[in-house]
Amino acid sequence: MALIHYPVVDKNGETIASAVTNLDLHDIARAARTFGAKAFYVVTPLDDQIQLANQILDHWLTGKGAVYNPKRKKALELIRIKTSCDKMMEDVQKMEGCRPNMVVTSAVENERGVTYKELKVLLEKGEPCILALGTGWGLSKPFMDSADYVLEPIHGAGAYNHLSVRSAASIMMDRLLGQ
Amino acid sequence: MALIHYPVVDKNGETIASAVTNLDLHDIARAARTFGAKAFYVVTPLDDQIQLANQILDHWLTGKGAVYNPKRKKALELIRIKTSCDKMMEDVQKMEGCRPNMVVTSAVENERGVTYKELKVLLEKGEPCILALGTGWGLSKPFMDSADYVLEPIHGAGAYNHLSVRSAASIMMDRLLGQ
Repeated sequence: MALIHYPVVDKNGETIASAVTNLDLHDIARAARTFGAKAFYVVTPLDDQIQLANQILDHWLTGKGAVYNPKRKKALELIRIKTSCDKMMEDVQKMEGCRPNMVVTSAVENERGVTYKELKVLLEKGEPCILALGTGWGLSKPFMDSADYVLEPIHGAGAYNHLSVRSAASIMMDRLLGQ
Repeated sequence: MALIHYPVVDKNGETIASAVTNLDLHDIARAARTFGAKAFYVVTPLDDQIQLANQILDHWLTGKGAVYNPKRKKALELIRIKTSCDKMMEDVQKMEGCRPNMVVTSAVENERGVTYKELKVLLEKGEPCILALGTGWGLSKPFMDSADYVLEPIHGAGAYNHLSVRSAASIMMDRLLGQ
């Protein structure tokens, strides 16, 4: 699982580096631990955001939070902060022994879109995959275009599908790895 | 959809009224709108928490937020703040013309547990249902016992299943109402 803060776009479609949100780290780490992801990468190139993420991790992994709520510690232990998507790829490659598939996600339909069923087959074959979700207004187009797979959007009851990144990540992991 | 702040339990199993969390309202409202829930009830008896929830709603429904992000407005419009679960029941009864089924949820296995498939059948028959999630450490036992149905927990890859209430609500709606 990967939460990308760069390269993502803002409301006007400009490529930016977004801010780290405390509850993104908690919610996605808890879902990642629940559904058995091997790691949860938080990608940000910004020094102050790396510092913020590290402060949150310190509190829950070794500080008072670790004593107050050991289950939260167990979730946040999955987090690995990386300064770029390339550094994340390198880390997964080292862990898995081969280049992982980069699977990107979007709330918008994409002609390259693969279904949850197709991605499940890949996972069941044991192929290492990074499931990358963008913060802000989503992953940048060049980054999407360079990915190995684009996962189909989550369809609800109608045209409205503006889920939070926390909800989207949780639903995706449930669909791919839930019982 | 209903998010209950009373009666819920704290870490020690004591019945309490919990605090309203801003992102609970946003995330669950967005998921409720995406998956076609008719309303999203926020139940709290505490005056200051009702005031906080109303301030959040005012900002996004009629304040600057409504102009900044109309899609967020469309989600938060689903929210109805009620001071008790009885008041919520009355409201749904008025809307639906009959008493709704109270479906409660928990991360813990319950002998009365119904499956997602069973609950889907009920929904497809057009039976009005309230899906109630507890904040804090979950719904109180007497409230659970008085419910019509107890939905089975979300199972992940192993024994760990400490999802946030935002993640759990999103996954439950996807399982029950997603495509």
